[in-house]
Amino acid sequence: MTDEQHFEDGVAVLKKMIGGPDAERMRQGWREISPDLERLILSFVAGQIWTRPILDLKTRSLCTVAALTALGRTTALELNVRMALGNGATKEEILEAMLHLAPYAGFPAVWDGMKIASRVMGETGM
Amino acid sequence: MTDEQHFEDGVAVLKKMIGGPDAERMRQGWREISPDLERLILSFVAGQIWTRPILDLKTRSLCTVAALTALGRTTALELNVRMALGNGATKEEILEAMLHLAPYAGFPAVWDGMKIASRVMGETGM
Amino acid sequence: MTDEQHFEDGVAVLKKMIGGPDAERMRQGWREISPDLERLILSFVAGQIWTRPILDLKTRSLCTVAALTALGRTTALELNVRMALGNGATKEEILEAMLHLAPYAGFPAVWDGMKIASRVMGETGM
Amino acid sequence: MTDEQHFEDGVAVLKKMIGGPDAERMRQGWREISPDLERLILSFVAGQIWTRPILDLKTRSLCTVAALTALGRTTALELNVRMALGNGATKEEILEAMLHLAPYAGFPAVWDGMKIASRVMGETGM
Amino acid sequence: MTDEQHFEDGVAVLKKMIGGPDAERMRQGWREISPDLERLILSFVAGQIWTRPILDLKTRSLCTVAALTALGRTTALELNVRMALGNGATKEEILEAMLHLAPYAGFPAVWDGMKIASRVMGETGM
Amino acid sequence: MTDEQHFEDGVAVLKKMIGGPDAERMRQGWREISPDLERLILSFVAGQIWTRPILDLKTRSLCTVAALTALGRTTALELNVRMALGNGATKEEILEAMLHLAPYAGFPAVWDGMKIASRVMGETGM
Repeated sequence: MTDEQHFEDGVAVLKKMIGGPDAERMRQGWREISPDLERLILSFVAGQIWTRPILDLKTRSLCTVAALTALGRTTALELNVRMALGNGATKEEILEAMLHLAPYAGFPAVWDGMKIASRVMGETGM
Repeated sequence: MTDEQHFEDGVAVLKKMIGGPDAERMRQGWREISPDLERLILSFVAGQIWTRPILDLKTRSLCTVAALTALGRTTALELNVRMALGNGATKEEILEAMLHLAPYAGFPAVWDGMKIASRVMGETGM
Repeated sequence: MTDEQHFEDGVAVLKKMIGGPDAERMRQGWREISPDLERLILSFVAGQIWTRPILDLKTRSLCTVAALTALGRTTALELNVRMALGNGATKEEILEAMLHLAPYAGFPAVWDGMKIASRVMGETGM
Repeated sequence: MTDEQHFEDGVAVLKKMIGGPDAERMRQGWREISPDLERLILSFVAGQIWTRPILDLKTRSLCTVAALTALGRTTALELNVRMALGNGATKEEILEAMLHLAPYAGFPAVWDGMKIASRVMGETGM
Repeated sequence: MTDEQHFEDGVAVLKKMIGGPDAERMRQGWREISPDLERLILSFVAGQIWTRPILDLKTRSLCTVAALTALGRTTALELNVRMALGNGATKEEILEAMLHLAPYAGFPAVWDGMKIASRVMGETGM
Repeated sequence: MTDEQHFEDGVAVLKKMIGGPDAERMRQGWREISPDLERLILSFVAGQIWTRPILDLKTRSLCTVAALTALGRTTALELNVRMALGNGATKEEILEAMLHLAPYAGFPAVWDGMKIASRVMGETGM
């Protein structure tokens, strides 16, 4: 496959996960920081990782939410909570994936993560 | 519920996930380090977290594997790869949950995690 | 012991450490995010960890402050600076426990931690 | 050498890297938090580390920016982006040192780092 | 460009950095763990990141060594010390890039990193 | 004060904490890796941090053990468990400082830390 095909796959999967307007808003934010950052996130992260088989999008979302909560990467966590909702995870499942991490990453990481998830869920009305 | 009930729940869920002999071997290792460590892992981590509803054991395992790979906690990761296999995750799904993290936690964390998973899977013949 | 007893122990120790009004405010924040988060923080973290023997509350506070500073968990660090003051640590001791970490966790972590401690101490007038 | 000499070396190298007014503003911030923090940053970090031979200031800056981006230490990263610009790194080189880390520390860390770098570069007009 | 072209670029740049026999040995290790891991490391990490302009290979190596030392990713650090030597960094420069991090990532991370670098350098006779 | 005085202070405090033969063995290990690493550990970490007032050596040791357990820095943790014993912390207090971190840094970090502490305590007969 070519880079352009991966990029188009990435654009499509991002839209599918968070909807067209939010996808455009995210892309614009990355592009303003660096056009190469936008391009690599779409062609590699979205286009070559999220399109892989074996695990469905919802399971991928819960694993990503778990890892980002543990690492304390709050900016990407906010986006991934939105993606998880778009991928069919319920509010309860997302919060549970975080609470499950309390004995593994500690309560402080879980507290920060759940605070972000609550805010996102409040805004999206879900 | 009482501490004893949580402890018994934890013993049962650990056995269910990795089998009786491995569960006993793990418990002995924790007990030799500290009887309180064994007690809290069984009554709290196994008995009060892994027994919660909303997410099934396999999804919990994949999320835990993702978080421990990201954090680089290799001792607990080895145990959790065994638990994931016991909880019905296939070898391919466990490796995929790790590979999915490459753009989130970096390839070095994924490389270390997949090395451990490969070794465990080789030993268990799965 | 039962979960209820651990919970009551947790409520009592949290009140003792930061006072009734602050304890209620913290609990409400956790409850709004997730009633289970509040329950586990009180019954496990406060009720089963902070009530253990061998180390006094002040030493536990300084160790927690050290670990949270190193990990960069700023939300929980703010609460734990308040708890440390309530547990009898002086302003100087808390800042010193952070400065001591400069060669272990690096100056950036210490800078962030001391900034939080200064702000908390300014607000509490201590 | 004496502590005073290291301190003077540190004051000089900080001024050289970010200019007199910014150096004074940073020092005041550290001093308000803790006079010992200011003293150790100047006499040890600036005076004994940044003055070492073998690597030039620009290379040191790019390595520091890389490490702080990976660790997610955003307060110190902002200062070090300014220092990197003062040490002769171009805007493009600083962003590239961050983007290079995507496969090593993950895109979320790079996204946060590049956002800070963009803001600093916008403010300094560079 | 196509995936195959990125892959070939990655194979070429890895060979250039650590030599043909070591490149083959590394690839075999990744392939045994997971053919997809080998493929993504070559086509993305080596083929699309290490081939980028703006920073030369030696500067990229020193930044990578800095980030991996800070993160404590020892398996990848060992490989990257070899790559840094192949990219023209001297033994002294690599150790200096690590020592420079002492105030940023702490002495324990630096100690672990320099131990690995010393061993690699002893083995390669550099 | 001069660097030499800080260095001598560092040599003295290290000897006091782990005894002459172990201090010499540690210093030799650092010197073989890098004479500058040995010099900075003794003159800065030991000579300027561990000699500070406000917190006694035992409290400093427990805070360091807590931070290194949380960060997963196992090489330095082993040394600091020895130092904690030399500074008057009992075996029980050291293990308790680690167990206390379970809700903050997670059980995997605590498990690794307590394993190291158990081994050190077994070897030293304490």
